[in-house]
Amino acid sequence: MYTLKIGVIGAGYWGPNLLRNFVEIPDADAIAVADLDEERLRFVKKRYPSLMVTQDYHDLFELGLDAVAIATPPSTHYAIARDCLEHGLHVLVEKPITLSSHDAEMLVELADQRNLTLMVGHTFAYNPAVRALKEIIDSGELGQVYYVDTVRVNLGLFQNQLNVLWDLAPHDISILRFILGAEPIAVGACGAACICSDIHDVAYLYLEFPDQVVAHSHISWLDPAKVRRITVVGSKKMLVYDDIEPLEKIRIYDKGIERLPHTDTFGDFQLNYRYGDIVIPNIRFTEPLRIECQDFIDSVVNHTPPVSDGNDGLQVVKILELADCSLQQGNGRLHLPEREVHGRDALHAN
Amino acid sequence: MYTLKIGVIGAGYWGPNLLRNFVEIPDADAIAVADLDEERLRFVKKRYPSLMVTQDYHDLFELGLDAVAIATPPSTHYAIARDCLEHGLHVLVEKPITLSSHDAEMLVELADQRNLTLMVGHTFAYNPAVRALKEIIDSGELGQVYYVDTVRVNLGLFQNQLNVLWDLAPHDISILRFILGAEPIAVGACGAACICSDIHDVAYLYLEFPDQVVAHSHISWLDPAKVRRITVVGSKKMLVYDDIEPLEKIRIYDKGIERLPHTDTFGDFQLNYRYGDIVIPNIRFTEPLRIECQDFIDSVVNHTPPVSDGNDGLQVVKILELADCSLQQGNGRLHLPEREVHGRDALHAN
Amino acid sequence: MYTLKIGVIGAGYWGPNLLRNFVEIPDADAIAVADLDEERLRFVKKRYPSLMVTQDYHDLFELGLDAVAIATPPSTHYAIARDCLEHGLHVLVEKPITLSSHDAEMLVELADQRNLTLMVGHTFAYNPAVRALKEIIDSGELGQVYYVDTVRVNLGLFQNQLNVLWDLAPHDISILRFILGAEPIAVGACGAACICSDIHDVAYLYLEFPDQVVAHSHISWLDPAKVRRITVVGSKKMLVYDDIEPLEKIRIYDKGIERLPHTDTFGDFQLNYRYGDIVIPNIRFTEPLRIECQDFIDSVVNHTPPVSDGNDGLQVVKILELADCSLQQGNGRLHLPEREVHGRDALHAN
Amino acid sequence: MYTLKIGVIGAGYWGPNLLRNFVEIPDADAIAVADLDEERLRFVKKRYPSLMVTQDYHDLFELGLDAVAIATPPSTHYAIARDCLEHGLHVLVEKPITLSSHDAEMLVELADQRNLTLMVGHTFAYNPAVRALKEIIDSGELGQVYYVDTVRVNLGLFQNQLNVLWDLAPHDISILRFILGAEPIAVGACGAACICSDIHDVAYLYLEFPDQVVAHSHISWLDPAKVRRITVVGSKKMLVYDDIEPLEKIRIYDKGIERLPHTDTFGDFQLNYRYGDIVIPNIRFTEPLRIECQDFIDSVVNHTPPVSDGNDGLQVVKILELADCSLQQGNGRLHLPEREVHGRDALHAN
Repeated sequence: MYTLKIGVIGAGYWGPNLLRNFVEIPDADAIAVADLDEERLRFVKKRYPSLMVTQDYHDLFELGLDAVAIATPPSTHYAIARDCLEHGLHVLVEKPITLSSHDAEMLVELADQRNLTLMVGHTFAYNPAVRALKEIIDSGELGQVYYVDTVRVNLGLFQNQLNVLWDLAPHDISILRFILGAEPIAVGACGAACICSDIHDVAYLYLEFPDQVVAHSHISWLDPAKVRRITVVGSKKMLVYDDIEPLEKIRIYDKGIERLPHTDTFGDFQLNYRYGDIVIPNIRFTEPLRIECQDFIDSVVNHTPPVSDGNDGLQVVKILELADCSLQQGNGRLHLPEREVHGRDALHAN
Repeated sequence: MYTLKIGVIGAGYWGPNLLRNFVEIPDADAIAVADLDEERLRFVKKRYPSLMVTQDYHDLFELGLDAVAIATPPSTHYAIARDCLEHGLHVLVEKPITLSSHDAEMLVELADQRNLTLMVGHTFAYNPAVRALKEIIDSGELGQVYYVDTVRVNLGLFQNQLNVLWDLAPHDISILRFILGAEPIAVGACGAACICSDIHDVAYLYLEFPDQVVAHSHISWLDPAKVRRITVVGSKKMLVYDDIEPLEKIRIYDKGIERLPHTDTFGDFQLNYRYGDIVIPNIRFTEPLRIECQDFIDSVVNHTPPVSDGNDGLQVVKILELADCSLQQGNGRLHLPEREVHGRDALHAN
Repeated sequence: MYTLKIGVIGAGYWGPNLLRNFVEIPDADAIAVADLDEERLRFVKKRYPSLMVTQDYHDLFELGLDAVAIATPPSTHYAIARDCLEHGLHVLVEKPITLSSHDAEMLVELADQRNLTLMVGHTFAYNPAVRALKEIIDSGELGQVYYVDTVRVNLGLFQNQLNVLWDLAPHDISILRFILGAEPIAVGACGAACICSDIHDVAYLYLEFPDQVVAHSHISWLDPAKVRRITVVGSKKMLVYDDIEPLEKIRIYDKGIERLPHTDTFGDFQLNYRYGDIVIPNIRFTEPLRIECQDFIDSVVNHTPPVSDGNDGLQVVKILELADCSLQQGNGRLHLPEREVHGRDALHAN
Repeated sequence: MYTLKIGVIGAGYWGPNLLRNFVEIPDADAIAVADLDEERLRFVKKRYPSLMVTQDYHDLFELGLDAVAIATPPSTHYAIARDCLEHGLHVLVEKPITLSSHDAEMLVELADQRNLTLMVGHTFAYNPAVRALKEIIDSGELGQVYYVDTVRVNLGLFQNQLNVLWDLAPHDISILRFILGAEPIAVGACGAACICSDIHDVAYLYLEFPDQVVAHSHISWLDPAKVRRITVVGSKKMLVYDDIEPLEKIRIYDKGIERLPHTDTFGDFQLNYRYGDIVIPNIRFTEPLRIECQDFIDSVVNHTPPVSDGNDGLQVVKILELADCSLQQGNGRLHLPEREVHGRDALHAN
């Protein structure tokens, strides 16, 4: 069987993880790495002596690669991804796919024209716990979903010229779209810019989905403790997914409130509180990035769209743009334009 | 020394706690309890056989009481508190003091005219952990406060005809005013009404205080796990107060981010992350309600204002009114009118 | 219906809890309290003004009481309990019932002769979580019980002239006897005497039960964190009971190891590890002491033996005596004499 | 500078970790890997394509290696390590160094004769948290150490023909020797053999050190939850080291009990309980195995003894032999022969 030849552009914080996975996946070979920083190149070369390394990513175009993975600063995503697509390479680019929806649309279009895979690294769509969470929701075990609350906070790492919304919210937005299988219809945001007066480092994001489903995300670079928690409250049961927990990631609470149908008094109501068992399902954990990289390989080989394709990247950027507008201007809830859905563009989560 | 004669109106969930404290405080005697529910009266009578109990709170006016504590449903606070003040009794009323700022103003005025203590049961202002938290902030150990995040969620107890904002947010608002020693200048709220379409059971409250200090409160009656957490992020250190923890309520993190003063590049900046020790101070815990009841007694005896007086109750109601407006209408951040401060009305926290 | 008249002897740490429960139980009235310390008498009198209080417990014999609860220092249990039984009173005495098996036998005999209830305060036998634990074991859900590990440690409270074994181990021994429904056949102990060279403050207790079931208890007055944990490992599932957890006291782990029956090689074996879900059953919690006090009342009224009767107290003391011998002399595992079982003496747990 | 050429024998569970570290350490090159299992060789070859791999470890003797790391089953340690030393290679061997003190002595002697480094993989001696723990003890902050309690339990992995003592206790014994800087003078053990009647899978180990310092270790392959906890109780402060905690590994409790010097009564004593702050020191974490591998490299290059040398391995085996004897025969506490200390053999911890 043919083994895909992969290059990795960017060997900073995340790049080595992509590299490791492409090295270890049987159907792929990581051939080359590009990074501006010689120190980082020495680091990866020591680990994998047979790698070709370069400070100029254009050198990768000479190697007969099939695909690249891009883990450079977000502001460079558009130009590098475009360059790679134009050189006929399949592209996996880290989130956010670009810093504007216009740029994202350009990339999606270009990949479509060239019939190349364009994938965005929404890792959580490949996380076994998130997938278990989606299965639990889809099974109806929680009943009707009332609301979802997410918290993604810790200390640092600040991004230059990019606020916390663009850095962390792509995770929450992609998770919410994935588990709810729907697009938000309105967003709002508020927050604080504590360290640099022009860059929000704390944000609270409010999203409205169809059927009165509400979601809220607290994201912060300025919190003493690392928290990665998603709470899903349904009409039958409730669920907490704590990504920090090494083993017990999901707890299903057989708890709920029922409104009793018949009450005599006007205005009053009677509620029944149900307190039952808690179940912590055993989830077989595989590194999400491994599954993501495998999905990229499969997409390239089989000419099928990956789970998190360019359109997912684009949708997330559209939501981020609107949320950032609300955050900057303090003008509350803003409505997203209804999305035209056609062809490959249909949400895979559905 | 004279022992104050106290009556308790309302023997539901909270009333017996007030009763127990007034029974046990040396300077007070709990004489009588009023409640509409005979079952509750039997319950307290079994525990304290010498109590006078009645279904009609007007009977308490015949007993020569000095003061009453009112723990009835919030919609009745105004009428009962007014009645008691008019009968010359000092009044401790549970939070929220009333359901409108107009009513609260009436009570404050009446108490002032009659020279009676009017106190509202903002228990957390008497909580040793909250007081320790305030001392830590005031000492400057945290540096300049950047933002405060609070979470107060659990399953139930729903209130009839009162949304979660009016039920739970009085705690957070009174704590924030207390620890920051300031009044908010703007508020906004969003949320969800899951169980009863007209009553919000989940709310996210955003508050702006002077000096760009931002606060955010997540409150909910619909959460599988009980959380009572306040995070204070300062320029020097960060702090988490977890009220669920039986012993280790406050953690001070010697963590922070400093923006380095000189950087050559335009737009860029350099940050220094500091990771240091965590200290969990030993806090001598006393039941907050005991301290609160003692403050009420002292206020009555010494003719001095209590820590949480009627004006505190009024201020909290004003903020709630505006937040509820934002919650209902979705119109984002609303500015509070600047407060005229005079006489006793000055915030004691300062 | 007749309401039992109860006296409480000893109003130190535990006595007020007994008092509160007898005050609140409908079928009983707490009439009088005796304690040598006037301060403690004033304390209970303030709380329950109608109580008769005295420094001399003999005064209680003049009041026409039906029963007494004794919560005095262990060294006084025998003399006071004997005195009360001789005055025709039913007796609930705190654990350990006495400090020697000889004394315990005398009390059991005396109560039998007088046809009086003699009960020992092994509270955990009344703890809903321990009862749920016993039901789970008895249901066979865990399979065959392999071993039980218990930890009961915290800082203080040291007892005068009594080592940690006599203070804390009665809990573990009574729980183990209760949940396993069997008597140990051998015991051993080791430990340390850190603060006072003649009084062990740390002990490790090893117990062998029939059918190769092994139990081990770590008890200590000298530990920085309070731990109250029991682990039961069975052939099918495993269970952890954490008494510190306010709500999630029991966790059932669907985990296990199976030895595969057929393996070719000599000496070798193959094991199958099973990792499944964790279930945290919802346990309706009632104060154990309330259930215990009610059992005492019921025993007196109905002339039926309580769950933890004098014989239970006696058996626990026999085990303590042997364990203490092993602890003092370092002579390892000692065998308990086989117990003659007759009449009421049969273990109720069976 | 010369780069050491390293071979790794055994590529099962632990071998790849050794391999990864030797690959990444600047002063060393991992050249070759030997394992009986072809599957494991394919696995490491995919990861590091330039490696020489073989099923016969003797092939490694042809490669001009400087040193080997041995991570094979314990029963093969002696023969392979001897073979490697006889071929002039420096040896790092996993714990336990051998399965008998006689064999360990032979290896130590052989390495001494050949002037080769013989090191045993007592990883915890290289763990930054254990080193911080030792520094805290040595600084006197805890006062005099009273006792140490360790818990090392989880589900599996069972070893063939080796009980839990030989598998897990080397960690605790090496940690205790390291942090206390002393050899135990007596040991005892009890336990249970649940899955295979001849192989203990649960053990409780008791150790006496000089100056009345007592240690106790609970080790088990049969526990539903993974616990790695060490509690050190001193006369001034207490400390808990929880190796499962990702960040907050050590907690220093400013808690203690003081015996007041003067008391009037005979037999009685008065104690003062001190409850103070808890401090969680920030520990810069580096992978212990990295430090261990670096120590091995440094030892080879500089001809200096490593922190955990062959004598440490030998001492731990002597203690294990005696503990196993106590475990098998149930004969309680056994005394270790006093150790003759000479030359390099002196405990480095001192």
